[in-house]
Amino acid sequence: MVRAATRTQAAPGIPLSNSAFETIIDAFHGCLTRMDPAGGDIWRTPPVVARALITEVGYGEYFPHLLGSVHVAAESGEISPTDLVLLPAGCYCIYPHYRGRTLMTPVDVGVEAICFRQESSHEVGRLRSFRMREFVHLDTELGCFGWRDEWLNRAEAWLSAIGLAPVRELASDPFFGAQRKVLAAMQRDQALKWELVVEVGPGIRQAVMSGNVHKTKFGDTFNITGPGGEAIHSACAAFGSDRLALALIHTHGPDPSAWPDTVRAQLILGGFA
Amino acid sequence: MVRAATRTQAAPGIPLSNSAFETIIDAFHGCLTRMDPAGGDIWRTPPVVARALITEVGYGEYFPHLLGSVHVAAESGEISPTDLVLLPAGCYCIYPHYRGRTLMTPVDVGVEAICFRQESSHEVGRLRSFRMREFVHLDTELGCFGWRDEWLNRAEAWLSAIGLAPVRELASDPFFGAQRKVLAAMQRDQALKWELVVEVGPGIRQAVMSGNVHKTKFGDTFNITGPGGEAIHSACAAFGSDRLALALIHTHGPDPSAWPDTVRAQLILGGFA
Repeated sequence: MVRAATRTQAAPGIPLSNSAFETIIDAFHGCLTRMDPAGGDIWRTPPVVARALITEVGYGEYFPHLLGSVHVAAESGEISPTDLVLLPAGCYCIYPHYRGRTLMTPVDVGVEAICFRQESSHEVGRLRSFRMREFVHLDTELGCFGWRDEWLNRAEAWLSAIGLAPVRELASDPFFGAQRKVLAAMQRDQALKWELVVEVGPGIRQAVMSGNVHKTKFGDTFNITGPGGEAIHSACAAFGSDRLALALIHTHGPDPSAWPDTVRAQLILGGFA
Repeated sequence: MVRAATRTQAAPGIPLSNSAFETIIDAFHGCLTRMDPAGGDIWRTPPVVARALITEVGYGEYFPHLLGSVHVAAESGEISPTDLVLLPAGCYCIYPHYRGRTLMTPVDVGVEAICFRQESSHEVGRLRSFRMREFVHLDTELGCFGWRDEWLNRAEAWLSAIGLAPVRELASDPFFGAQRKVLAAMQRDQALKWELVVEVGPGIRQAVMSGNVHKTKFGDTFNITGPGGEAIHSACAAFGSDRLALALIHTHGPDPSAWPDTVRAQLILGGFA
């Protein structure tokens, strides 16, 4: 059995992973696909995305310090911005495909992405390039809160079953600028973001899943409405695949064939080879 | 059966693909893993890589017009280059892990990558973000030419079997600058690069595989030597997964369940579900 491993590629937070590590990632993705009661299509997005889209959702305004911008050299040698940025979260790719639509029933869609955030810390699991599997739901406000809470329950039970002892914590996004405290407090007051936190390294606790409701932010931005013409609400459940693998290796060791039978059974049921 | 599909995400050459398309990609990767006689480990690299590495291999000198550079905003709002660029080819991640080593036997390793090149054309298959599966071989000059030619034969037989009618063509890289014609002619004269070209869209022919020998370029750069202290030679066999999928859909239609039995059998033997 090959031991699951990653190497740092000269730049911190940019790991090179081997086949055994990828087998764990694939197993997670299989589990998550099977756990999704909606059974919707899973889209795959490249790691770069139209700059116009990320501007439209306001990411550059709220999180300019995390956003990677793609520049290239012109004939003259001068370096200029392109029409692309690095994708900061998978779900941004989904909403514009419903632009201007009136939804008569809730919509469920999944997305698998490699995301980039310019993290300033270099602790274990604090990757700058990382895999994210997300489920997105478009519905009423009540429908979105219910859907989000069901995913938190489901993910909590699953993470417990694979021995990761998750803790559910109210959270907020790492906003930038003068308004950051106000924005974070508002997010917490309304319980818009919950995370499931586990140990990914010795004494290092990080979120491996977040359940988010966005109110009508994306419905407003992309003019997506419900049957009565009201802006649609949205929610997403996001899983950090690399951190999940790091947490399992930290907890059970680098050789998946030596993991406890109960853990292996849970992963096998979800597609672990 | 879901039809295999991609959507363009506002920016040309940046496709969003669905589950059925990804099933084809996964099948290719399964085939390639099984076709590799070395059976080496397959590493997975993020889509960004240390700028220092890409500078060290001279990519920014030969192909500055294709290279994506990652920039971020400082506290002041000023946009500055980071320590990262977008990865232009998977194999660059492999060589530095053998830096300074003396190899007593040939080395085989695979890598799966998402690459970026700032292509100026927007025709079908001319993606800016694309998946690449590569096999890398470190050996003597004779060993590298032989290994490269065997991969060309193997890939040609496989592409023929799945109905893509490949044509083997001597090729050169799209060098930049005053020396570009000289560099390309030298590459062709020494037959350093062969491509397997197929039709990926109506009247659009593109390479889906290339077999390359690098002489001692990477051995010299990273001080990797053979048993007698001589610089090691290297070769790579690179497959463009997205183009392969586009070529199959163009040739046999978007519903894999309706593809000819012979094609399905070839892919099933290689892991197609």
